[in-house]
Amino acid sequence: MYIIKRLMEVLRDQTGHTETYLPDVMTISIQDKSDRHAAVTDPEVNTFHRAIASIVVLAQCFGLLPVHGVTAPSAQSLRFRWASARVVYTAFVLCLLLFMVLFCSLYTLQIGGSFQDAQCMIFYGIGTATYAMFLEIARRWPRLMVQWSTVEQKQSCYGPSRRLRLKIRCITAMILSGAAVEHLLNEYNNLKFAAQQANTTTSIIRQYMLKSHHHLFNYVGYSHACAAVATMAGALATFSWNYMDLFISITSIALAERFRLLNRHLQNVRGKTLPGQIWKQIREHYTSLMDLTDTLNLCISHMVLLSFGSNLYFICLQLFNTLGRLAKWYERVYFYWSFGFLILRTVTMSLSVASINDESHLPRSVLFAVPARGYNVEVSRFLQLVTTCEVALTGLNFFSVTRTMLLTMAGTIVTYEIVLVQFSHNDS
Amino acid sequence: MYIIKRLMEVLRDQTGHTETYLPDVMTISIQDKSDRHAAVTDPEVNTFHRAIASIVVLAQCFGLLPVHGVTAPSAQSLRFRWASARVVYTAFVLCLLLFMVLFCSLYTLQIGGSFQDAQCMIFYGIGTATYAMFLEIARRWPRLMVQWSTVEQKQSCYGPSRRLRLKIRCITAMILSGAAVEHLLNEYNNLKFAAQQANTTTSIIRQYMLKSHHHLFNYVGYSHACAAVATMAGALATFSWNYMDLFISITSIALAERFRLLNRHLQNVRGKTLPGQIWKQIREHYTSLMDLTDTLNLCISHMVLLSFGSNLYFICLQLFNTLGRLAKWYERVYFYWSFGFLILRTVTMSLSVASINDESHLPRSVLFAVPARGYNVEVSRFLQLVTTCEVALTGLNFFSVTRTMLLTMAGTIVTYEIVLVQFSHNDS
Amino acid sequence: MYIIKRLMEVLRDQTGHTETYLPDVMTISIQDKSDRHAAVTDPEVNTFHRAIASIVVLAQCFGLLPVHGVTAPSAQSLRFRWASARVVYTAFVLCLLLFMVLFCSLYTLQIGGSFQDAQCMIFYGIGTATYAMFLEIARRWPRLMVQWSTVEQKQSCYGPSRRLRLKIRCITAMILSGAAVEHLLNEYNNLKFAAQQANTTTSIIRQYMLKSHHHLFNYVGYSHACAAVATMAGALATFSWNYMDLFISITSIALAERFRLLNRHLQNVRGKTLPGQIWKQIREHYTSLMDLTDTLNLCISHMVLLSFGSNLYFICLQLFNTLGRLAKWYERVYFYWSFGFLILRTVTMSLSVASINDESHLPRSVLFAVPARGYNVEVSRFLQLVTTCEVALTGLNFFSVTRTMLLTMAGTIVTYEIVLVQFSHNDS
Amino acid sequence: MYIIKRLMEVLRDQTGHTETYLPDVMTISIQDKSDRHAAVTDPEVNTFHRAIASIVVLAQCFGLLPVHGVTAPSAQSLRFRWASARVVYTAFVLCLLLFMVLFCSLYTLQIGGSFQDAQCMIFYGIGTATYAMFLEIARRWPRLMVQWSTVEQKQSCYGPSRRLRLKIRCITAMILSGAAVEHLLNEYNNLKFAAQQANTTTSIIRQYMLKSHHHLFNYVGYSHACAAVATMAGALATFSWNYMDLFISITSIALAERFRLLNRHLQNVRGKTLPGQIWKQIREHYTSLMDLTDTLNLCISHMVLLSFGSNLYFICLQLFNTLGRLAKWYERVYFYWSFGFLILRTVTMSLSVASINDESHLPRSVLFAVPARGYNVEVSRFLQLVTTCEVALTGLNFFSVTRTMLLTMAGTIVTYEIVLVQFSHNDS
Repeated sequence: MYIIKRLMEVLRDQTGHTETYLPDVMTISIQDKSDRHAAVTDPEVNTFHRAIASIVVLAQCFGLLPVHGVTAPSAQSLRFRWASARVVYTAFVLCLLLFMVLFCSLYTLQIGGSFQDAQCMIFYGIGTATYAMFLEIARRWPRLMVQWSTVEQKQSCYGPSRRLRLKIRCITAMILSGAAVEHLLNEYNNLKFAAQQANTTTSIIRQYMLKSHHHLFNYVGYSHACAAVATMAGALATFSWNYMDLFISITSIALAERFRLLNRHLQNVRGKTLPGQIWKQIREHYTSLMDLTDTLNLCISHMVLLSFGSNLYFICLQLFNTLGRLAKWYERVYFYWSFGFLILRTVTMSLSVASINDESHLPRSVLFAVPARGYNVEVSRFLQLVTTCEVALTGLNFFSVTRTMLLTMAGTIVTYEIVLVQFSHNDS
Repeated sequence: MYIIKRLMEVLRDQTGHTETYLPDVMTISIQDKSDRHAAVTDPEVNTFHRAIASIVVLAQCFGLLPVHGVTAPSAQSLRFRWASARVVYTAFVLCLLLFMVLFCSLYTLQIGGSFQDAQCMIFYGIGTATYAMFLEIARRWPRLMVQWSTVEQKQSCYGPSRRLRLKIRCITAMILSGAAVEHLLNEYNNLKFAAQQANTTTSIIRQYMLKSHHHLFNYVGYSHACAAVATMAGALATFSWNYMDLFISITSIALAERFRLLNRHLQNVRGKTLPGQIWKQIREHYTSLMDLTDTLNLCISHMVLLSFGSNLYFICLQLFNTLGRLAKWYERVYFYWSFGFLILRTVTMSLSVASINDESHLPRSVLFAVPARGYNVEVSRFLQLVTTCEVALTGLNFFSVTRTMLLTMAGTIVTYEIVLVQFSHNDS
Repeated sequence: MYIIKRLMEVLRDQTGHTETYLPDVMTISIQDKSDRHAAVTDPEVNTFHRAIASIVVLAQCFGLLPVHGVTAPSAQSLRFRWASARVVYTAFVLCLLLFMVLFCSLYTLQIGGSFQDAQCMIFYGIGTATYAMFLEIARRWPRLMVQWSTVEQKQSCYGPSRRLRLKIRCITAMILSGAAVEHLLNEYNNLKFAAQQANTTTSIIRQYMLKSHHHLFNYVGYSHACAAVATMAGALATFSWNYMDLFISITSIALAERFRLLNRHLQNVRGKTLPGQIWKQIREHYTSLMDLTDTLNLCISHMVLLSFGSNLYFICLQLFNTLGRLAKWYERVYFYWSFGFLILRTVTMSLSVASINDESHLPRSVLFAVPARGYNVEVSRFLQLVTTCEVALTGLNFFSVTRTMLLTMAGTIVTYEIVLVQFSHNDS
Repeated sequence: MYIIKRLMEVLRDQTGHTETYLPDVMTISIQDKSDRHAAVTDPEVNTFHRAIASIVVLAQCFGLLPVHGVTAPSAQSLRFRWASARVVYTAFVLCLLLFMVLFCSLYTLQIGGSFQDAQCMIFYGIGTATYAMFLEIARRWPRLMVQWSTVEQKQSCYGPSRRLRLKIRCITAMILSGAAVEHLLNEYNNLKFAAQQANTTTSIIRQYMLKSHHHLFNYVGYSHACAAVATMAGALATFSWNYMDLFISITSIALAERFRLLNRHLQNVRGKTLPGQIWKQIREHYTSLMDLTDTLNLCISHMVLLSFGSNLYFICLQLFNTLGRLAKWYERVYFYWSFGFLILRTVTMSLSVASINDESHLPRSVLFAVPARGYNVEVSRFLQLVTTCEVALTGLNFFSVTRTMLLTMAGTIVTYEIVLVQFSHNDS
């Protein structure tokens, strides 16, 4: 109580002849009354933990992110235990995919290792790595979410984000439905191809399985049970590959949203004279967001590298492989959808991650506009923080995901594509 | 009044034994007397709003930038209304160009999509995007110009720029006349080609239209009315493409000129001991220019990206397409003019935009040369501002347009050209 | 005594109502009691000089790093003398390798200089350069190690590193055993090839020598003595090439470990209010580590450049040369082992060197988290140091070895590989 | 007098219990006694103006850098006059070379413009541009040299540089003799080729002229007078091309030497406590060196761009053109000498220019090592200067010449070479 009183005095002294300034909390309370009201009645609704719950539950159906307490109201309830059914399920899927990688590798080595055969090995390899990484993330997830909740509670004065839930739902719907359509088109293509070489339903399925999993049935005899397992493995790998991008996008957007709320508050006090105490508070909020970014980076930077690498690889290869070899209309439809969706998903994921960096730069212009009499050591420290630290998710610290880096990546893709297409042209 | 008196006292105290210094406003008033006299008698003449008026009017003849109040003496009169004849005109052109894109796309897909056919689709695509972007800019134009006018009024102590109007006229004349010559040469080429295959005037025109718009007449039957519309669409797309570069150049030059005026003033006080109050004023002027750059960037960064992308694409492709296939002298003349003009326009535009960044760096050396006794917290803040903030227009925040970036782009063009030319050589 | 007393007072005043803080030395002493105990009983055991002794002795068996006093307990005993048996040995090996380079050059010029023949010349050239560089390093080694020891003694309050010795041993074992296997596989390949063209043991050896050293026996007649010398030269060059990477890795890891110990201490005081005196001490420790990095960089930056250059060259060339020309199983085994080991060694070396840079950034976040009342000019100076200086080993100052640079290098390799593979494909 | 007395007091107070420190000037006077003695007896001997005099005179023999007063003892005597015999001579050479460019262009256009023919046009184009640029530099030379002299006089306390004259002579001797040998080898090659097709001396010369200047004699009839003029034009262009690199190297080395002298002084005071007054003086010296760099950059940045561009072009092209087409031994000798010399000259020039940037970074570590009690606002300003300003010559502000940039250029050359060589290989 004494502190607030003292603060008000300081405030009154310092702001003397300038614009009157309603202290931090009041400004917000007037402006976002409706929001805050909702927040008070149901304080847990707008946490990130709650917002992401359903998406994590979906992942757990496919064996990803095996933590307990996902649907609990508070992040404190999250637990990771090695000895749990969810981890066993994940381990089982991991083994299944490892087997697929093994068979693909054997096949590739035996055949001689062209790019097209290696593609299968790489696809299952990415799937396996994704499952392993989500297991690793699951171990760190409870701590991360507790830190996140603490940040959200401490910074609840900036109000909740109304747009976050909507954004998360849109991206989830877009990526998952797109992936489903792509998977179905792929199956249709394979079935159509199989139907050309067989006439009974059973033999069509047999033919289809032999085509789409020839690396497996080359070593084990064909059986329907085995075919079912292989189909499941394919579906799981496809899902995990898509979910990886979705997961990175969502966490990035949620983090960027925290920065955005802080920036919105800063815009409100642009050009005003605030006491050092309030600058100190905002600076500490910014610092805790930076720490949260570091923690998140520690958790998912492996996955960011894998995601960028695999998307880069498949964009280059898919265009190169398919160019000029599309005879049938359904082949074309599959190719355009598949390629367009790949590009769209990569761009969505990239821009989501880069938005953290974008938002983190914005306080700069507000801080430079602080009037001369409001300038103090806290503003100076905040400014140094904002101008010298790069806040961004990284790919295992090899690169920071910023807009500039995305342009570099796009340039790399174009260069590789030009060289590869020229190769393919000379070849034929 | 009290403040000025106080300031003079501070001034007298601080400058004690050093060079006597005439306060800011006086120095300027003596030096630029003639300029300031003109400025007083007709204060509105030298605003950017007035300087660009005729060029915006020209754009509106072609349906670009549909705002009202362009020729009014003050920027306050600018208005954008959805329900106005100008917006309807713009919307009509937009629809026309969209139709052209549609026909080109259909044709390209049907033929199979070689690079040369896609060129037509991309050309009209760029035209459509340009019109859409200018519509978006028009919405933000009134606010931008009001902010610009405010900056000009507040910084009128630096005197008006005599060179700005001249520069704008030179660039406009150069780009528009160059584009006109290129367009005529192109038509001459097409007519000449048509004349080889027909003998009556009507049939020549018919032949010419069929050649230059075969993607259209492949779907709709030939008619003179249709041909006229197609010709108009081509002219509009060509104009908008050229105007885009012109518009970016002019706004950039005008902004860079504001920085240049501030720098000229700074050069005058180089090495002198000024009171903090004056440094504060200059710093705030610089900050408001930075804010203006941010606002301008928000308006036209989409267009900068489109402009750089399209120029990069056409430079690479035009050289590649035409190399070694120029039989007739008029084909050669057209190619050399067209390519030379494309390079010239791109370089002009790039250097204009980069000049903002160039000028924004210059205060640095003056600030480092501030003598020890004139150094205070305001100089320190100004220095931090200048050394840590990159002031530049960007391409949708993916890249800042600086001289270094232009070199990178030139290097990219050379690399692509080498690979593509090699491709073409091996091919034949 | 007075100073400590005074310090305690300052401490008590400053930390007033915040977390109580045990002064620097105490915290450490409690936490790392066991370590410090060990350190007190045998203070020299954990120095870098002692840790690297056995590895330097191994190098001296092959004529590298000819200094005296390597096994002495203190770095003070290290001496370099031109007139010593070790230097004479080194000079002899250097001459031998120079002869090999001469013969290879002659052969390459005579044949006409294809890439594959130049490879032998480059291999021996790298070997010669390595020996010359280690001679240069040997001259500076005593001074470097004395500086290193001083740093270790002054910073002994951070405790010894238990992991350093283990890390050094692991990397040594990995690189040397890997290189041995690779060398044996290579010899086996050559012998197998020779065995196809001869039947008696003597003639096999003769054939084998003629194949693997044809550039030599083309000029001098075959003799068993000559063959033995050539074999020795090959082994020495191979060892020196591998040892170069090992040496760079080990020194880098040891230096990064010093930064890591300092960072561990900083993490312990995160968010606490320390007196300026203690910040001053930590800053000076950090500065002395920076100076040590500079000294080390002066010693081995030539070698870093050579190492990166040669690895880049051999990775590109080996893949290109061998692709699709592996008929026999032992050829395949040799190729995969050789290529995998080359990649592994390069990555190990690169990440070791980059870890110095990684560790040097970490104090930043602790310094930004210093609470407002603990912020003083020392923290500010430390922060400026950390944010503006890039601490890293360099390749002759042409590039700093950081994680970002490693990504650039990887991208370059991929680009070159794509172009070269395309070349090879079109060729056949 | 009072100030010095006061300063000594401050000094005594501040350095209290630390190392005793002899004020700036004394330290120097003791250390460099012999140097300073020489400097006092003949103060003008060691100026850059005197050191470069003979090299400028040499240039004037070939019509470059037409200024008056080059051999005068003081830089104050330098004058540039449009109406002088030297400028007329330069203008004459410029016209001559312009004619050659004209004939080459005509020939290239007529033939069809292959790379090899364009080479001649580009060679004379570079020569013409060099003469024009040296004319421009001549206009600014007097002012630059006066500024340079002022800096040298004000910083004479750092002692003269003994190594500068030696360095300048070595580089001059190396580049000019290398260029002479290359020119003679080229003539020998051409004569040898001519001798194969003619038998009398006159006809050999005729044949030789026709071969080496076919672009000229294709338009004007052959005459000995005309041949003499053409030979002279060739020699002038060759000289100017080599002299350009030499000139850039020498001025860069001289400037870097000034930074080196300042750094040597800084190393002497490393870790000592100096009063702010002395730091102020050193900082101002550093600032004036930065200003000198800016002025020099304004003078020769055009030439730096031209030099880098032309060297990059000729390195790429010469290797590509000649590869695998060297039948005779003298052709090989010419090629290896020419290519080796080109690389050597480029590397010398690049490293000379980059050395300015290298030296400008060195004060940083000294400033960070300033002890806590010697830290004041002057040290802080100096530090900010050193850490935020990049001091380097630039290529027309498109790139700063630093070591990092040289590596990028080397990488670009290798990439282009790989693509071009592949092209050449597929071609044949």
